Amino acid sequence: MEGKPLVTSKQRTEVVRGVPTQVVCTAFSTHILVVVTQFGKMGTLVAVEPSKVASDVSKPVLTTKVLLGQDEPLIHVFAKHLGAFVSQEAGNKAVLLAVAMRDRSLEGLTAVRQAVQACQVW
Amino acid sequence: MEGKPLVTSKQRTEVVRGVPTQVVCTAFSTHILVVVTQFGKMGTLVAVEPSKVASDVSKPVLTTKVLLGQDEPLIHVFAKHLGAFVSQEAGNKAVLLAVAMRDRSLEGLTAVRQAVQACQVW
Repeated sequence: MEGKPLVTSKQRTEVVRGVPTQVVCTAFSTHILVVVTQFGKMGTLVAVEPSKVASDVSKPVLTTKVLLGQDEPLIHVFAKHLGAFVSQEAGNKAVLLAVAMRDRSLEGLTAVRQAVQACQVW
Repeated sequence: MEGKPLVTSKQRTEVVRGVPTQVVCTAFSTHILVVVTQFGKMGTLVAVEPSKVASDVSKPVLTTKVLLGQDEPLIHVFAKHLGAFVSQEAGNKAVLLAVAMRDRSLEGLTAVRQAVQACQVW
């Protein structure tokens, strides 16, 4: 028998600089899962966690850790930028980000951020 | 503008031995993401990967690695059991499993396996 879902999920498919891009956001009790995919790939899995020792109460320091896939500097920048606003808006929850983007331009990042905001589940 | 989703996802909420349990399966090009949650938690994140050196062509050896959360022997058993049939049915894709189950009895595992089968996206 089907019951009421325990976790909320929203998804959206947009064309980001010519490339169809899907965003799926799912809210768990302590984590937000954000999937950003182009070409149907899962890509790199990054954990974005607010550190317990915050330098400033309103903006805790975020740590990013690549769990699966290629660990390159740009993925940390991308994850911090996306993760920071999701984590903050969700009340400092940790963010798990699966990102498969070929385009890592600032314009691409801004468009993805808007798509993630449109899938707000927190 | 909304477009056609790039990845397929199915979800189901069932009562497993008295506890509402949600299963969400998402098919990426090289991975299947399987979320099994009770109490809305994300729980332990485990990567289940078919090894490249297979002992038997039809049944490759699976390796399980805890990426996030508590690394305990039972989670590997659980992940191998669930991951094995998903990976095999999906043509030896890797499986990323997020599992938050308090009940790790054989009956619970069997019920979850049936719920995952009902969310077949591969």
